[in-house]
Amino acid sequence: MQEIKTINGTILQRTVEAEELEAHIGETIKIHGYIYKIRRMSDFAFVLLRTKRNVVQCVYSEEFSMFSPEMLKEESCVVMTAEVVREARSKTGYELRMRTVEILSEPKETVPVVINQKKIDTSIENLLDYRPITLRNEKERAIFRIQEGICRGVREFLTNENFTEIHSPKIVAAGAEGGANIFRLDYFGKEAYLAQSPQFYKQMMVGVFERVFEIAPVFRAEKHDTSRNLNEYTSVDFEMGFIESFEEIMRMETAMLRHALYFLKENCGMELELLKVKLPVIEAIPVIRFREAKELIAKEYGREIRDFEDFEPEEEKLLCGLIFEKTGSEFVFVTHYPSKKRPFYAMESRENPEETLSFDLLFRGMEITTGGQRIHDYEEQVLKMKRRGMTVELFESYLMMHRYGMPPHGGLGLGLERFTARLLELENVRRATLFPRDIHRVTP
Amino acid sequence: MQEIKTINGTILQRTVEAEELEAHIGETIKIHGYIYKIRRMSDFAFVLLRTKRNVVQCVYSEEFSMFSPEMLKEESCVVMTAEVVREARSKTGYELRMRTVEILSEPKETVPVVINQKKIDTSIENLLDYRPITLRNEKERAIFRIQEGICRGVREFLTNENFTEIHSPKIVAAGAEGGANIFRLDYFGKEAYLAQSPQFYKQMMVGVFERVFEIAPVFRAEKHDTSRNLNEYTSVDFEMGFIESFEEIMRMETAMLRHALYFLKENCGMELELLKVKLPVIEAIPVIRFREAKELIAKEYGREIRDFEDFEPEEEKLLCGLIFEKTGSEFVFVTHYPSKKRPFYAMESRENPEETLSFDLLFRGMEITTGGQRIHDYEEQVLKMKRRGMTVELFESYLMMHRYGMPPHGGLGLGLERFTARLLELENVRRATLFPRDIHRVTP
Repeated sequence: MQEIKTINGTILQRTVEAEELEAHIGETIKIHGYIYKIRRMSDFAFVLLRTKRNVVQCVYSEEFSMFSPEMLKEESCVVMTAEVVREARSKTGYELRMRTVEILSEPKETVPVVINQKKIDTSIENLLDYRPITLRNEKERAIFRIQEGICRGVREFLTNENFTEIHSPKIVAAGAEGGANIFRLDYFGKEAYLAQSPQFYKQMMVGVFERVFEIAPVFRAEKHDTSRNLNEYTSVDFEMGFIESFEEIMRMETAMLRHALYFLKENCGMELELLKVKLPVIEAIPVIRFREAKELIAKEYGREIRDFEDFEPEEEKLLCGLIFEKTGSEFVFVTHYPSKKRPFYAMESRENPEETLSFDLLFRGMEITTGGQRIHDYEEQVLKMKRRGMTVELFESYLMMHRYGMPPHGGLGLGLERFTARLLELENVRRATLFPRDIHRVTP
Repeated sequence: MQEIKTINGTILQRTVEAEELEAHIGETIKIHGYIYKIRRMSDFAFVLLRTKRNVVQCVYSEEFSMFSPEMLKEESCVVMTAEVVREARSKTGYELRMRTVEILSEPKETVPVVINQKKIDTSIENLLDYRPITLRNEKERAIFRIQEGICRGVREFLTNENFTEIHSPKIVAAGAEGGANIFRLDYFGKEAYLAQSPQFYKQMMVGVFERVFEIAPVFRAEKHDTSRNLNEYTSVDFEMGFIESFEEIMRMETAMLRHALYFLKENCGMELELLKVKLPVIEAIPVIRFREAKELIAKEYGREIRDFEDFEPEEEKLLCGLIFEKTGSEFVFVTHYPSKKRPFYAMESRENPEETLSFDLLFRGMEITTGGQRIHDYEEQVLKMKRRGMTVELFESYLMMHRYGMPPHGGLGLGLERFTARLLELENVRRATLFPRDIHRVTP
């Protein structure tokens, strides 16, 4: 056997990152990226280079550029050598004088939607149909850097609070949330489903790690085609044991969101500025009971209560408006939702079994979280299922944890895309989803 | 409107964490957890308390315990007050003398499988059938703390290398990997599929962020019922642009795995010790071409080559054995897999189009990663699809990125459960999966 080659894992940095340019002022460096925009003047051209996270101002001029300007096309991939020079009129305080350019690839055609203006001026349908391209827009992609920042902040917080991250299955034998909005699957000739939430599994794992979380896709076969619904979304779920009241879950969420916002401020300043995001301040979040909230809205706006068991979307907006007016908070916890509207695992209030020890968190006019305490006692859970006419035998593997001992526990699910959308004040939750899925859309 | 209550996000720590006990020697503290094991002696009892991540030795004695020993049941959830005392015979150097105990919940029955011995002595079927309970075993759960550690290490590494974490859809209109092993779904009356990998999406996102990664479920409708296959698993995927050769991807993976192992050593020492894990050392990873590897195995073991396009599982084992013998490495990269066996997006070698610029990473006898360079040129991709008899129109949204410009790029997918299983030398990949899915199993 001849000598064996090896890979040693050394990562060569052949080019400079945009973030490091300032340290190279006065030097000639190598940098790579996508030609984002070319603005040709009479004897020179402004060229914007899109890198991993930045857009860098470059200048082409016959004076110092040693190539033909016709070589440059928007959306070409290039490696260039350039001199970093101070330039007061540039946002960053410097610009790149292009010396040489190597073209790595060229687009076959010019893009069908203009993506290199401040804002993409097109319909939401076009924005989504051409998603692989429209996401290249500086502002569109910044949305997802912020979304990543939220996840990183949440992970950092939960890890510090001794939560363990888990991976639960998405193909399941029974839905956790009930109702008809579940996707059916042919699983080797048998029927299976796509998980509506990791509910059952995160509860089981409370028996193992006491505190767990998961950030993963969930699937809802809802036929609503609205600006607030997705059929597949990313759910930030946590579940915690040994709680003394369901308010502990709300306290944990409050601290978690506060940390996530702090994390964004520390790590996504550029994107927040680009999108002109007004981060909300979380001090203390107001809490109101569902019934009181309904009555308050009815009274303040002279509205008739039509649905005694849930909010209409319009009511969520009105409530948030009212709370903001009275307290200055953009968040509000609504608690004690009616038992009828909550799943079979929701724990009922000891004082009033018509109400559950549950909550939603509303933010800027929309529900972004549902949570609450769960039933941990076996008999109590079985009784509630029977009262609801459920076939207890179908849930045998779920009930195993109750049967063999569970602590008082509860948790929540936060819709990542909804939270991102409200944070960035995007009118449609699809804009906060890389590749949204709705009743009409499974592509791109 | 009356005064509004608020939640301020203060997290009260009412009890001590097991990790902090050493600082409390000589004090009486409050701690909570699950009664894991009771060993009753004539006039006292050893009680093991299972906390989030530890098992703590406690002692019951009429001398200092102010409750009846009959109150204690295995798998009960309790809050106790106890004195932390030095005890040389305890592994930790201290033990807890139980003073008072409050029972928060009790199991309805004793567990059907003994879970509080060093090892659960039962079949893999029982282990999985009673998963919510068997995971409570100290060693079983340690597997998943290590798995979490791998993910944390990988995330830390990739984030430092300027990768952006993404969330791509799992409901898709076309499979990325081809073949028949795809799950079909009724999507509002139309047929859709479960993503076999995030391949298309991570490539699209290279056009946006240059470097991206995702840790998420993927779905394969493989009918193989083996100890190495799962129908749903967690794929650690990354994809990077502006590469000069596919070896850069291997270098990145080498550095990533090295960092993950370092992270484990720093953060999961207790679990590694509990499971007696021998972490591999990654210095330089040997690289061998697929064809040479096949010939080497044939020669060294006098085996006839039956399949010229892929390895048989036995050959992966033999190759790993050979490489370990010759180089001391437990990892080996196999490169240049035959084009016929690689997907349509694999870039072919310029010297020999029968071979692709691709690789697998084998570890301790098993393939854990598949990766390679992808075609970035539109014409080249379309031509290859046509040669394969594919209907190009069906892939319009995938080809959009090629049409409008892509850099040379490539990436890989690492099977999280397989890597965990090989790292911990678990004979069945199911043991490294919280709730495995196979052809016979969708519960628990």
